Amino acid sequence: MSLPVSPLAPASFPKMTPLGGVRLAVGACGVRYKERTDVLLVELAPGATVGGVFTRSKTASASVLRCRAHLPGGAARALLVNSGNANAFTGARGVAAVDRVVATAANVLGCAEETVFTSSTGVIGEPLPDGKLTAFLPTLKERLDADRWEDAARAIMTTDTFAKGSVRTARIGGATVRIQAIAKGSGMIAPDMATMLAYVFTDAKIPAPVLQALVAEGAERSFNAITVDSDTSTSDTLLAFATGHARHAEVEAADDPILADFRAAFDAVLIDLAHQIVRDGEGARKFVTIAVGGAQNDVAARKIGLAIANSPLVKTAIAGEDANWGRIVMAIGKAGEAADRDRIAIAIGGVEIARDGEAVPDYDETPVARHMKGQEIDIAVDVGVGTGAATVWTCDLTHGYIDINADYRS
Amino acid sequence: MSLPVSPLAPASFPKMTPLGGVRLAVGACGVRYKERTDVLLVELAPGATVGGVFTRSKTASASVLRCRAHLPGGAARALLVNSGNANAFTGARGVAAVDRVVATAANVLGCAEETVFTSSTGVIGEPLPDGKLTAFLPTLKERLDADRWEDAARAIMTTDTFAKGSVRTARIGGATVRIQAIAKGSGMIAPDMATMLAYVFTDAKIPAPVLQALVAEGAERSFNAITVDSDTSTSDTLLAFATGHARHAEVEAADDPILADFRAAFDAVLIDLAHQIVRDGEGARKFVTIAVGGAQNDVAARKIGLAIANSPLVKTAIAGEDANWGRIVMAIGKAGEAADRDRIAIAIGGVEIARDGEAVPDYDETPVARHMKGQEIDIAVDVGVGTGAATVWTCDLTHGYIDINADYRS
Repeated sequence: MSLPVSPLAPASFPKMTPLGGVRLAVGACGVRYKERTDVLLVELAPGATVGGVFTRSKTASASVLRCRAHLPGGAARALLVNSGNANAFTGARGVAAVDRVVATAANVLGCAEETVFTSSTGVIGEPLPDGKLTAFLPTLKERLDADRWEDAARAIMTTDTFAKGSVRTARIGGATVRIQAIAKGSGMIAPDMATMLAYVFTDAKIPAPVLQALVAEGAERSFNAITVDSDTSTSDTLLAFATGHARHAEVEAADDPILADFRAAFDAVLIDLAHQIVRDGEGARKFVTIAVGGAQNDVAARKIGLAIANSPLVKTAIAGEDANWGRIVMAIGKAGEAADRDRIAIAIGGVEIARDGEAVPDYDETPVARHMKGQEIDIAVDVGVGTGAATVWTCDLTHGYIDINADYRS
Repeated sequence: MSLPVSPLAPASFPKMTPLGGVRLAVGACGVRYKERTDVLLVELAPGATVGGVFTRSKTASASVLRCRAHLPGGAARALLVNSGNANAFTGARGVAAVDRVVATAANVLGCAEETVFTSSTGVIGEPLPDGKLTAFLPTLKERLDADRWEDAARAIMTTDTFAKGSVRTARIGGATVRIQAIAKGSGMIAPDMATMLAYVFTDAKIPAPVLQALVAEGAERSFNAITVDSDTSTSDTLLAFATGHARHAEVEAADDPILADFRAAFDAVLIDLAHQIVRDGEGARKFVTIAVGGAQNDVAARKIGLAIANSPLVKTAIAGEDANWGRIVMAIGKAGEAADRDRIAIAIGGVEIARDGEAVPDYDETPVARHMKGQEIDIAVDVGVGTGAATVWTCDLTHGYIDINADYRS
């Protein structure tokens, strides 16, 4: 199944250039797809640190479990990602496949197994043909090159309709460092699990515990604040690698003032990638920003925001270009968090259409109707009980989603 | 918008006959709809008891709040329900409207306000034209009749495609008693909130605290075990009334052995009504039963079942007649309850297609494919950690759902 590029896609893949300490290689080893690349090897120079967060699924895949086990070491030398097969729900055979892939990668690259990180994305429940990957590793090693970033983003795609990347620079003390990242994901498409994968690389020198804190906190405001269809892959993975090839003053803690600019850039990269995943949501025709305020606390605000963002009724109303605030009230109510029914305020496209728990009498519908016809929809909600705030992002729910997901498995 | 009758509808409305202590009247008072009934008055003879449960929404409607306030009294003389306007998100005006309706009903029927229960269902955010209701009450009183059950079920419909009713008889000691119930609901349709309303009547003599226990426990295994689209109305109401007109031995507690048969019949009525609501789900073409076993406890089992039932990916796969067990595994994982990835078993239509965390090699796809083409889909899941079990029910997610919900508000 080949899908047209999402109407919400960015104009182009961002310009990426070599980043000190990172070399990449891609290949077509025929895991499942024909005539396209399906494997990515990233080699990190000695000394690189790593941080990561993973799916909260209780049925996490074998590679996620192995990555989690390697993470406390804090060191990374290799990242190997295949598309076409998720190696999920493959039982003991799946675990053995990951073990063989990790062992071979460590052997080929001459590094410790604990520094090898792997992800698999694609069809589930079928044994990973790991022999195809391991046999291809020496070739990949020969192909390692500092300038293969867009190819890397393409090799990890499954049913994504566009390659996803993000670049930012930041200052640490007097030095300039760079952050380059790639990601894939577009909801969950048959027969794939449409795992969300994101890999962030920087030449900054960030101790592993600091990097881990940046990843964990940044994920809360980005990947954990988006939803396409509320479904959760067994393989979702966000990993960040810091090579330390840039020269700058020592960084000691995540809240070190010297890290403020880097941290802002790092968060911006995560949010950019998260937005791109929503923009590639299955059948998406509108990108929706939901800002919640007045909640008991920030966690409650995000929960309310996700209840709105996950509501099929809200999402279909947006698809129908209908400023249906009643469904928003309904979703606020079902979130289970404190809200004052008689103080709720809702604005769409900047126009307040409900206030103090009632429709605003005779609000001007013209700008609201115009806003609903656009591709970027802004919903702001105040639930009237506190100062907690959060922003979440989603897309609309259209016939395209049904078309894609109700197809027979090929 | 007039919708064709759901393909999953029962063949006909059940035969209902007069029930001691209950009289009903319907009318067309023009709340919103033209040329159809939109108000139901039920008069209960003195001595009737009441039990009820309501939406868990934090933005519950004014009539729900008023019913909750009346419930501790345990006595009911009147039920007044209007369709066409939900009186939800109408602020202080909505509260005042309920107050006027309750006061007038109590006055017209000559009963205490605390014995009057009301519900409103229909469009939200518009003031309830309660004057139309109160002016019509004397006429309704004159029309009270013991034999208007199907008319009652029709008067409370909003976007339902068929009227919903259920009847059972039961033995209490040597006596036969009857339970007759009506309900409405079909998901949530613009511009309506498509509130779920259910009213159960019996001529048995059940003390209010016992009735309350029966309702609360029965709702867990019926209305709280169904989902169409995971969305929650601000007005969901389940009320049960017992007139005590039947002669039978005294009932003292919900777990009184003399009540065992009644209790089973009562539960069966709730489950029947709950199933009918799912069968009228927006765009539904398949009725899906999901039985979860092997969970840590029954509550965990139901949470896993609802995660499967609410997953857009599972629901679209069923719409596509695809036995996509991978999405079921995904949904198990996202429920957040304990599950042993490597012991999960899944059967569809009675055929085990996954076992011990892996696809069953070479299972016979023919009967599974045939099952998926039917209207009644059975999914059984064992998550391999305990003995908790639960059954939940849902429908598929089709283009019909999008058609209905992405329409512009009229």
